[in-house]
Amino acid sequence: MISVGIIGGTGYTGKHLILYCDKHPLIQDYKIYSKNSFNKNITEIFPELLNSIEDNFVNSIDDLTYEHDLYFVALPHGESLKVIPELYLRGKKIIDLGGDFRLDSADLYSKWYNYDHDKPELLKEKIYGLADISSDIYANSRLVANPGCYPTAVLLSILPLFEEFSKSIRTINTSAYSGTSGAGKSPKADLLLSEMYGNVKAYNVNSHKHEPEIIQYISKKNFSGNFSFVTHLVPISQGIFSTSFLNFDHEVSYARVSELYQEFYKDSPFVRLRKTSPEISWVVNSNYCDITFSVKDNVIIITSAIDNLIKGASGQAMQNLNKLFGFDQTLGIINKESKNVDIY
Amino acid sequence: MISVGIIGGTGYTGKHLILYCDKHPLIQDYKIYSKNSFNKNITEIFPELLNSIEDNFVNSIDDLTYEHDLYFVALPHGESLKVIPELYLRGKKIIDLGGDFRLDSADLYSKWYNYDHDKPELLKEKIYGLADISSDIYANSRLVANPGCYPTAVLLSILPLFEEFSKSIRTINTSAYSGTSGAGKSPKADLLLSEMYGNVKAYNVNSHKHEPEIIQYISKKNFSGNFSFVTHLVPISQGIFSTSFLNFDHEVSYARVSELYQEFYKDSPFVRLRKTSPEISWVVNSNYCDITFSVKDNVIIITSAIDNLIKGASGQAMQNLNKLFGFDQTLGIINKESKNVDIY
Amino acid sequence: MISVGIIGGTGYTGKHLILYCDKHPLIQDYKIYSKNSFNKNITEIFPELLNSIEDNFVNSIDDLTYEHDLYFVALPHGESLKVIPELYLRGKKIIDLGGDFRLDSADLYSKWYNYDHDKPELLKEKIYGLADISSDIYANSRLVANPGCYPTAVLLSILPLFEEFSKSIRTINTSAYSGTSGAGKSPKADLLLSEMYGNVKAYNVNSHKHEPEIIQYISKKNFSGNFSFVTHLVPISQGIFSTSFLNFDHEVSYARVSELYQEFYKDSPFVRLRKTSPEISWVVNSNYCDITFSVKDNVIIITSAIDNLIKGASGQAMQNLNKLFGFDQTLGIINKESKNVDIY
Amino acid sequence: MISVGIIGGTGYTGKHLILYCDKHPLIQDYKIYSKNSFNKNITEIFPELLNSIEDNFVNSIDDLTYEHDLYFVALPHGESLKVIPELYLRGKKIIDLGGDFRLDSADLYSKWYNYDHDKPELLKEKIYGLADISSDIYANSRLVANPGCYPTAVLLSILPLFEEFSKSIRTINTSAYSGTSGAGKSPKADLLLSEMYGNVKAYNVNSHKHEPEIIQYISKKNFSGNFSFVTHLVPISQGIFSTSFLNFDHEVSYARVSELYQEFYKDSPFVRLRKTSPEISWVVNSNYCDITFSVKDNVIIITSAIDNLIKGASGQAMQNLNKLFGFDQTLGIINKESKNVDIY
Repeated sequence: MISVGIIGGTGYTGKHLILYCDKHPLIQDYKIYSKNSFNKNITEIFPELLNSIEDNFVNSIDDLTYEHDLYFVALPHGESLKVIPELYLRGKKIIDLGGDFRLDSADLYSKWYNYDHDKPELLKEKIYGLADISSDIYANSRLVANPGCYPTAVLLSILPLFEEFSKSIRTINTSAYSGTSGAGKSPKADLLLSEMYGNVKAYNVNSHKHEPEIIQYISKKNFSGNFSFVTHLVPISQGIFSTSFLNFDHEVSYARVSELYQEFYKDSPFVRLRKTSPEISWVVNSNYCDITFSVKDNVIIITSAIDNLIKGASGQAMQNLNKLFGFDQTLGIINKESKNVDIY
Repeated sequence: MISVGIIGGTGYTGKHLILYCDKHPLIQDYKIYSKNSFNKNITEIFPELLNSIEDNFVNSIDDLTYEHDLYFVALPHGESLKVIPELYLRGKKIIDLGGDFRLDSADLYSKWYNYDHDKPELLKEKIYGLADISSDIYANSRLVANPGCYPTAVLLSILPLFEEFSKSIRTINTSAYSGTSGAGKSPKADLLLSEMYGNVKAYNVNSHKHEPEIIQYISKKNFSGNFSFVTHLVPISQGIFSTSFLNFDHEVSYARVSELYQEFYKDSPFVRLRKTSPEISWVVNSNYCDITFSVKDNVIIITSAIDNLIKGASGQAMQNLNKLFGFDQTLGIINKESKNVDIY
Repeated sequence: MISVGIIGGTGYTGKHLILYCDKHPLIQDYKIYSKNSFNKNITEIFPELLNSIEDNFVNSIDDLTYEHDLYFVALPHGESLKVIPELYLRGKKIIDLGGDFRLDSADLYSKWYNYDHDKPELLKEKIYGLADISSDIYANSRLVANPGCYPTAVLLSILPLFEEFSKSIRTINTSAYSGTSGAGKSPKADLLLSEMYGNVKAYNVNSHKHEPEIIQYISKKNFSGNFSFVTHLVPISQGIFSTSFLNFDHEVSYARVSELYQEFYKDSPFVRLRKTSPEISWVVNSNYCDITFSVKDNVIIITSAIDNLIKGASGQAMQNLNKLFGFDQTLGIINKESKNVDIY
Repeated sequence: MISVGIIGGTGYTGKHLILYCDKHPLIQDYKIYSKNSFNKNITEIFPELLNSIEDNFVNSIDDLTYEHDLYFVALPHGESLKVIPELYLRGKKIIDLGGDFRLDSADLYSKWYNYDHDKPELLKEKIYGLADISSDIYANSRLVANPGCYPTAVLLSILPLFEEFSKSIRTINTSAYSGTSGAGKSPKADLLLSEMYGNVKAYNVNSHKHEPEIIQYISKKNFSGNFSFVTHLVPISQGIFSTSFLNFDHEVSYARVSELYQEFYKDSPFVRLRKTSPEISWVVNSNYCDITFSVKDNVIIITSAIDNLIKGASGQAMQNLNKLFGFDQTLGIINKESKNVDIY
């Protein structure tokens, strides 16, 4: 049984972390720390949780204690960086849901995040926790960078091809669309329902912070072609849909592609391979990533759908917790033996 | 441990019944019977359930067996009536999620449902299972009429006042709005997203089948004033919001009203009394009914919110199952000990 | 030909005023003045208007000139009050789209708007411009209080009954639902798409500023019963739907009610009487108010739909401009002779 | 002054054709012919049009007369083919909003539309009316194939590059998302609001009928690389957003690309070049196509937005009418002199 601290627990990802912690069979207790919304009970912030969870008090981040075994850090980028080094120094396990440790090089932070990263040594020590890709990295580190929501949707959908094909993919073009909850709960005019209802737009073309995160990962898999990425906002609350075009320099057979995906995900309970296009409504409020691929001549088209707040944040973070402690990765997330259906 | 049959399991309410049955600790097995969508697995009909439940086969309703202890019947009105009498004759427990047994008198069926009800004796034997109103009626019958979605939202919100005030309420005016899933999954032009997006309209003014159901219930509570009811369609998928104006012939005190509500629901885990207006997003995907009341001069305004498919259908049906078998009413629905958070 | 100043022209109602002014055949020129979004062109604020209107410069409100014949004032309440007295003193015609002059008594402002109104004499001199109710009031004043969006939807729907029935209506219970644009363009967390998508809630129960506005009007029509009012937010951008229950102390005949409505609106090009419930999608982006009534025993149920930004604000304001200057009331708003269909 | 027949006037595109015809200054009269919804007035089918247009009678398609100068044909594919040859034989001008004449070769119809096209000679005689691309083709034919909605959004966005670069573009990958109105008004379960609300999915991957239409056009512009195309459904009613990645075999300069677009569209009143991503809300209910391009290394990313029912159907059809008759192409569509702002 472990004790968990949730730092920044009052945003959208925080809410789901609380729900998971409240139900996880091996989490004995958890405390919530917030920068802005403290000194009240959690159901004052999330009225929908009333009766469904222990109604814990929300502490100020200034009253952060070091009593916990693991810390989830769900703070805006730049803020995690102020909190995590001390936790790390004290020997804690840490899962950062923000972007401050996802990239390997401090230089990339100057370029894409527009700040100077003052802990380059931690960038080296962290592991990048793309939890559904089975691996033995979890023994190597106490600091896990939880992947961004877009990189999760995109990388899970294309990675099965890289071992065999990384050298024959010339260009990857990815168009991804997200619901507005990915932009958080702080009020901004362009996220008002009045502005986004009935609307679709692209944003951050060639400048989205998740782009170097994807490139960094596939570069390590020996991909040296061009990756282009366009993110869009669609008028829904939760969900990401990703469509990737992989342009090969030769034809590929559907049969071989199919084998690669089946093999790659044969032990992944949260990845579901589909024959027809996944739908966001199939994955919303779940930790699944649904994937479909289509092959035509030299091009493989891959679509995937996730819940940006669950698989793209809190659900994957719980998988990472399980893996860090050597628990079954599905613990507290999905459980066929479970006897509960309400989300709250 | 019991065995359950779900008749009509491939519509919106059927899906949630399946989810509940799959997780309920005292349901040993369940079978699904469908009129139109049979001879396939349930995840072909509900792809979102893949990996999350046992992937049971969907049987034709023509292959209905009598092996189960309890039957959920989720058929269009007029159809339940063809199936239930035989089940009843064979001594089965039955929960009808349709409207064929909600009213007490066959005459009302001619008037409101536009068909001749040929089992008036069963109308007398059934109980009306408004599950959150604690009562001892469950020993009296094997046939439960599961309340309609609107009556659930409306009755739960106004009933605490009737013991004391039924004679001093002159008129009740209720305006209720529902998401489109209440109209089912059969394609109709006016339920297309293209037609309903950005749209709101009233429908069935003075002719909604749920109106006599509400009047029947409050008449038994000695209300003899006028009840008027307008239902609206709003462009969301799940949820009902109900706003009732109770016009009294004298002033009422907020303090007394508050006492009545607190007392009435003190043992009801699924009813949450709120200080400010409930929101549909607080109850969606849950079995809660959230209620707020406001008092001004001679008028009490009461608002309530439910998920029409859960509290207004399948969740309440599971409560009724629990009550029929003497289980704890929350079993399989909400469970703080539960260690599962994903809805799927 | 007249000259128009639009003060506060960069919010949702301002945009529609600009569109109307740009197309009105008797408006020679117009200037836009803004408190916060000035020193740029209007298409920088409303990119959708590019190519469709003259791309006028937006002036600071500090550079307000007195060159115009008429001023639209579209400022938050409390702000109009600072601007209008000087305009009035200079002999200008004024249409205030805010609430600062809608009520007759300064006391009501202390109570409902929570500020001290320092121009009670102007409250007496203004006229309340419910433009579809034909009247001769426009010769009496240069200051028009443009009605609130809810009062427009509610009053237009119930007023035909008052001449004959004001004394026999005991209570009026009105439930109205609005899209989010009614709350304006300033970012607030509870208006984010992430918060409102799939959501419905009541707000300001018994405390909405539009309640005294409605009561004031119907009191003058000799109604002395109780009026209760609940406003709701529904997840759409534009539109108001209003449902009113009028509880009579005697039965009323449908035929008589129908006569009253036909007669009352026989010369009103923007009011459309309907046999079945109006729909918000029928009136959105138009200046129409669609109305349906239903009679049963002692209760008349009336539903109406308007576009809150057009009929509930800018469209009605243009009608008021037309009436103030003695133009045809449809001028620049709807015109069958017109040969243009695009809104932009 | 001309006379127009609208065949298939009761669907979504029909409605907008009616609106345009009703307002066009050089259309003297128009008649509506429908296959299924005839023998009533048009406002029974489109209640929102009441008072805004002449309330014309809808004729059966069986009573089609040959009195008109031009016919809009808005029928499902396969149906236009039955009607158009006779109209053509009689010397009429025809604009087909369906797909039956968009492709040049009968073989393509067998492959993509799954039927045998029995008028291959008309496929040769028709012109493909991509109306914003200035050209002299309108003197060559009386039969115009109005482009599909997706091809309009995609082709307009990429064509400026082809004269100079068609040989250096290796692959084009286009991801496009449409609102549900593109699928028409016939009820289908997967287009219900209950199914699509909060949902996004891809459909017809590698099999969309609009794919050969795009390929045919760019092949004529000497493009011989690979074009891949994925269409998606997003939960809005009107609008298409298209994102194209053009992978070049060399670097291209932003300055040159910008020159090409400026030059290409210098005389196109309905194409608006944007610095930041277009938004569907900027173009909905208008005939505009908004386009943005972004250049990075070897890749040009181009996004565009249109209203699928206007620019992607009826608005472009009116442009085509204007061009066929030698009128100004903006006539009846947008007109700064116009004095009308309401869409209805």
